[in-house]
Amino acid sequence: MTERLVIALGGNALQSKDSAPTAEAQLEVVRRTAQHIAEISRRGYEMAVVHGNGPQVGRILLASETAKDTVPVMPFDVCGAMSQGYIGYHIQQALKYALSIRGRNYPVVTLATQVVVDERDPAFQNPTKPIGGFCTEEEAKRLEQEKGYVMREDAGRGWRRVVASPVPRRIVEIDAVRLLWDHAIVITCGGGGIPVVEHPDGTLEGVAAVIDKDLAAELLAEQVQADALLILTEVEKVAIHFGKPNQQDLGQLSLAEAARYAAEGQFGVGSMLPKVEAAMRFVRANPGKRAIITSLDKALDALDGKTGTVITFA
Amino acid sequence: MTERLVIALGGNALQSKDSAPTAEAQLEVVRRTAQHIAEISRRGYEMAVVHGNGPQVGRILLASETAKDTVPVMPFDVCGAMSQGYIGYHIQQALKYALSIRGRNYPVVTLATQVVVDERDPAFQNPTKPIGGFCTEEEAKRLEQEKGYVMREDAGRGWRRVVASPVPRRIVEIDAVRLLWDHAIVITCGGGGIPVVEHPDGTLEGVAAVIDKDLAAELLAEQVQADALLILTEVEKVAIHFGKPNQQDLGQLSLAEAARYAAEGQFGVGSMLPKVEAAMRFVRANPGKRAIITSLDKALDALDGKTGTVITFA
Repeated sequence: MTERLVIALGGNALQSKDSAPTAEAQLEVVRRTAQHIAEISRRGYEMAVVHGNGPQVGRILLASETAKDTVPVMPFDVCGAMSQGYIGYHIQQALKYALSIRGRNYPVVTLATQVVVDERDPAFQNPTKPIGGFCTEEEAKRLEQEKGYVMREDAGRGWRRVVASPVPRRIVEIDAVRLLWDHAIVITCGGGGIPVVEHPDGTLEGVAAVIDKDLAAELLAEQVQADALLILTEVEKVAIHFGKPNQQDLGQLSLAEAARYAAEGQFGVGSMLPKVEAAMRFVRANPGKRAIITSLDKALDALDGKTGTVITFA
Repeated sequence: MTERLVIALGGNALQSKDSAPTAEAQLEVVRRTAQHIAEISRRGYEMAVVHGNGPQVGRILLASETAKDTVPVMPFDVCGAMSQGYIGYHIQQALKYALSIRGRNYPVVTLATQVVVDERDPAFQNPTKPIGGFCTEEEAKRLEQEKGYVMREDAGRGWRRVVASPVPRRIVEIDAVRLLWDHAIVITCGGGGIPVVEHPDGTLEGVAAVIDKDLAAELLAEQVQADALLILTEVEKVAIHFGKPNQQDLGQLSLAEAARYAAEGQFGVGSMLPKVEAAMRFVRANPGKRAIITSLDKALDALDGKTGTVITFA
C-alpha cells in the first residue's frame, strides 16, 4: 500500500545560516534537500511538499521597502506570492532532477496557493510576527496613522511592523492539489499560503498576515487524507528540557503527553511548539494516523520507525 | 464539441497605463480582465492562460537592484519566477471569483513554469531586451567585467543591461498542465516561462533571458493540442499601414499573406510582429486550426467569427 505524505520543510532545508542569503546559496541547499525528498519518493511514498518562507518573504519585503522611492512597495500578500514562485521554482527544478537520476520521471510543480484565514481570528487582535525593516519611532507613528500598521519596538533595535498569525481555515486551490496528487509531486501552501480573507459576497482579499507553514501543512494533510504528516526541521527528535543537562529526546509522544509538555512550556514558542501543535492537530483529527517530527537526513529512518519523534493519538 | 483555447494576455490585461504601477492597480485591471475570461469559459471553452510580465519583472529587478546594499540582488530567472507568483496569484483570485458568480465552480491555479531555451540559440549572440535600471557608462563597464553582463547605451538615457530573447523549446511542467487541463483553468508559462537551459547531464539552469510570451503560448497550444490560439492585445484587429491614413484592418490573414506583410515590415518589431509570428507558427504546425489576434473585449465576438484577425493556413 502506497503511503501518502505531506512533508513540511523548515528553513534549514532552504538556506544555510553560514552563507549569504543569496538565491544562488538557496539553490545549493535546495539541491541537497531535493536528494532527500527524492529518496523518500523512490521508496514509493506519494507526497506533497510545503515549505517555509520567513527569511525569503522578509527579504522580498525589505527590498521593496528599501526601493520605495523607485518602485511602488508590494503589499505583503503579494510578497508571499512572490516567495512561492521563488522558492517553489528552486524546489521543483532541483527535485525534478533528483528524481530523474533515480529513474523516476515524475511531474513536479509549484502551485500558487491561497489560504483563507478568518477576519475574526483572535490573532488579528494581537499581531506578533515582525515583518520588514526597522524604522524610527517617528516613522512608526506615521505608518500607524497613514497605513493603519501595527508597529512595535523590537528589543532596542528600532520599530518594526507586526502582523497577525491566524489559523489556516481553507486551502483555496485544494481541488487542483487533489487533481494532481496521484500523478505528480505538488509544492503547495508555500510559506503557509498566501493569506486571504473571504468576504460575504465570496470575494477573496489578500491580507498582511503570516500563516504558520506547519499548520498549513497539517490542514493540507487532512484535506488530502494523507497517512502521515512529516515535519522536517533541524533536530532528529523533539526534546523536553531542551538544551539543559537533563534534556530528554522523545521517540514516541502521545497526544496527551504532547499536550502536557506543551502546557509545561517545554517547546519553544516560535520554533518547536507550532510543529508539535500541528502534529497534535493531525492525530486528533486522524486518531489512527501519525505525525513525525525529525530532521531531513533522518526522514527515511523515521518513516521506517527507527528514529524521529512519532506523535500518535494514544 | 468543446474547443480548447490557449489565451495569451498582453500587458494591457494586467496594468493600466494611466495609473501608478502598484499591485493594487494591477489587481483592479486583472479583475476586469477576469470577467472577460470568465465569459469565454461560460461559453464552454476549455482554456489555459499565459500572461506577459515585462513591466512587472522589470520592477522586481529594479527594486532588487535598488536595494542591493540591504538585500542580495535576485538573479533574473528568480525575478521571473517571482513575477509568475505575483501575477498568477492576482489572476487566479480574480478569475475564480468571476467564474463563481457565473455558477462555474472551477479550479483555477497558477503553475510555476520553466521553459527550456537552447544555449546555442542565435539570440544569445545578439541580446536585445533591456532589463533593470539605468546606470553610468563607468558602472556599465564594471558590470560587463565583473558579471559578464552585456550593457548597451539606451537612447541617451544611460546604460542598461540587455539580455537575449531566445525561442522557447520545451515547457518543463507540460505534464502537470495536461493533468489539470480537463478539470481546471491553468495559468502557466507566465512571462513566457522561467528561462532555463538544459545541460547534457539533464540539470536545468536558470538564465537571464526574456522569452516572448506569445511564442510560449504558441508552444503550449501545440503541446496541449489546442484548437485555437487566442492572442489578446490592445487592438481589435491586426492592421497594415498601421497609424497611417491608408491603415487597413485585416479580418482574415493566410499564412502566405502574413509572411509577406511581415517581410514588408508591416508589423511592429516589439509589439505586433511577435504576435503574428506566434500565430503563423501555430497554423503552420496545425494547418486545420486557427489563431486569432484581437482585443480582450472583442474576444468572444472574434471566437464567433464576427471580428478580430483570424490567421489560418490558407
